[in-house]
This record gives sequence, structure tokens and C-alpha cells, in this order.
Amino acid sequence: MTTCDDPPPFPPFGVHRSVRVYDSSWCALRRDEVILPSGDLQEYHVLELADAAAVVPLLEDGRVVLVGQYRYPHGHTQWEVPAGRIEAGEDPVRAAWRECREETGYAPARITPLPGFYPTGGISAHYAHLFIGHDCRYEGPATPEPSEQLVTRVFTRGELETLLDEGRFADGFTALALLYWLRTFSRDSSI
Amino acid sequence: MTTCDDPPPFPPFGVHRSVRVYDSSWCALRRDEVILPSGDLQEYHVLELADAAAVVPLLEDGRVVLVGQYRYPHGHTQWEVPAGRIEAGEDPVRAAWRECREETGYAPARITPLPGFYPTGGISAHYAHLFIGHDCRYEGPATPEPSEQLVTRVFTRGELETLLDEGRFADGFTALALLYWLRTFSRDSSI
Repeated sequence: MTTCDDPPPFPPFGVHRSVRVYDSSWCALRRDEVILPSGDLQEYHVLELADAAAVVPLLEDGRVVLVGQYRYPHGHTQWEVPAGRIEAGEDPVRAAWRECREETGYAPARITPLPGFYPTGGISAHYAHLFIGHDCRYEGPATPEPSEQLVTRVFTRGELETLLDEGRFADGFTALALLYWLRTFSRDSSI
Repeated sequence: MTTCDDPPPFPPFGVHRSVRVYDSSWCALRRDEVILPSGDLQEYHVLELADAAAVVPLLEDGRVVLVGQYRYPHGHTQWEVPAGRIEAGEDPVRAAWRECREETGYAPARITPLPGFYPTGGISAHYAHLFIGHDCRYEGPATPEPSEQLVTRVFTRGELETLLDEGRFADGFTALALLYWLRTFSRDSSI
């Protein structure tokens, strides 16, 4: 049952001018001049980035496979759920399956959605689709891209809860996907 | 008690070349050529963006104040926790307090940390600090920036749980901050 309405939608800003600052196959940046409700103009930068899919890979025994991955922008290696960009024309569910297989070597038998999110809605319309991958089975070695350095490890639910409570998932996609997944247990057990 | 080690840190990529694509006071973009472990070079884009602070504003009766905010990049108006960029030299706690006061009109008496995160660690070192703002009191009208269109509303914990389970917090900062905050209850009640 819905208990709260969404906020009343504000009318969108008009666009006075839009300058393409940078274009590439990986990302693009534009600088718009938007028309505020007051009529004033204001500069607004927008990063354009392909949408992403991320998945919590569940084994048949309920444990979860995570990837220890090096991230060049901040330099840390951290535990993450498999995730990556959705290719042009690719279905988000298919992208989640593919990323899971490529990064972990495990393939889900079935995929169900979790709530998605805008990671940085203040500067980008980039959207992340989150999923649970059920009954994952090992199919063969991971096949990461050349720039991906990773290891895999299987975690119990209790281990993941401990790591969450210790604040040790610095990757936003991972923390959010695991927290949503854990809520499905509290919901199921409260019925 | 720690049950899991962090993943073994991979050695960082070397940088063969770094080109500044764009610079502005709001954001910057650079295109690096990184040296992969194989010795091959690979292009890697990095977005530079000031770190952010976001806060769950708790009233003395346990309810939470959220902001209904229009976001130009994706065009939607959505419920969010107060959040914004940390100014140069500003303490993250101070930034959280300031954003709360500016966007809601309420000021926290005390601020405690939640785990922070990298919203888009694949392309940026941009980091978001999350907090709980306790015993918020109304101090006067919100003072948003000209480009911020917003309304405020007070939610009960039950309403927030329903909205989370319906997947209606599309803003990643908000969903993550609320989910971490809610876990503090399950932890406290399990002791």
C-alpha cells in the first residue's frame, strides 16, 4: 500500500544554450545554460555516461560472490558486486548476467530486480539498475577486461552484514545492492 | 569483531600521460593513459568533482525531514536527504550541518557519521560522506540556492521503510543514507 505521494513535480528548467564540451565513446560532458524560474540564466554541467547494471550473485546455498577490484580513479582495491556499463541496445538484465559471468565466472539461473538509483543525480542522468542473481553456478574462469584487476571470494550473509556495519563497502553500488537485498529477508520474515 | 580482510591491494596503474580535457570551478575532466600490468596502455577518463556530504535529519520525535528536489540532469523531482558539495577547506560535518539548514530550515543539535561511499568509483574519486543529524530543530525558512527548487516534508520511519521497499528513492545518496540509518535500529535491538 502506498502511504506517500511523490513530491509535486517542478516544471523543468528551460535550456537557453547547450555547449558540448567533450565527446568520447566512454563519456561526454556538456555545459548548459538553463533558465531558472526567476528568468535568470545559470550554468549547469551535465556528465553523459552509459547506464549501469549491478547484481548480487547468490549461490544455491545462499552465500554471495563478490569481486575484489582495483579502481584507478581513487586507487583502492575493494569488495564489489559485479557491475558495469550497459552496452548500446543491451537489456539491463542481460548486462547484469554478462557482468556477473565475466567478473566472477558464475552465471545466475534467474535474475530479479532490486530498486535502481541515480548515483550522481546532481550532475548526470546516469542510472544504475540493481538485481539479484539467483542460483549462480560456476561456469569457468572469470574473463575480465584488460583494465580490470580482480579476485573473487564467497561471503556468508553474516559476513556481509558485519562488513556493512563496519562501513567497509566503499563502493556505492555494492552497499546499496546488498542493503536492498538484506531488506528482502526482513520483509519476508515479518509476514 | 572483524571477520573478513579487505581484498589484497593491487599495485596501482602507472600513468603514461594525463591530458586535462576540461577545467571549471564545478567539475573537471581528464583523460589519462594508464599502464596496465601487461605493459599495454589504456585510455582512462576521470571526472574530478568536489566531495559531498549528506545527512539524515532526525527530529526529536524520531521523524525525518526530506526535501522534494528537482534535478535538472534527469528532470525528475524526488525525495532526497539534504546533500551538497563540500566547499574548499570545509569540514564534512560542517558541510552536512550547512546543507541541512539551507535545504530544510532545520538544524541538527548533534551529528554522527554513517559509512561513506564512492558513488561512481569507476570514473571518479568523488566521495560522499553520510551522517545522521540528531534532534533537528526548525530555525527558519530554507535558504536554497537559485538553481535549487525544493519543498520539505516530515516522514515517519514507517513511511520511509514503505517508500524504500517500493523502490521510490531514486537518489542513491538518499537510499543509502536511509538504509544505513535503519540498520542502526536492527543492530541496537539485537543487542
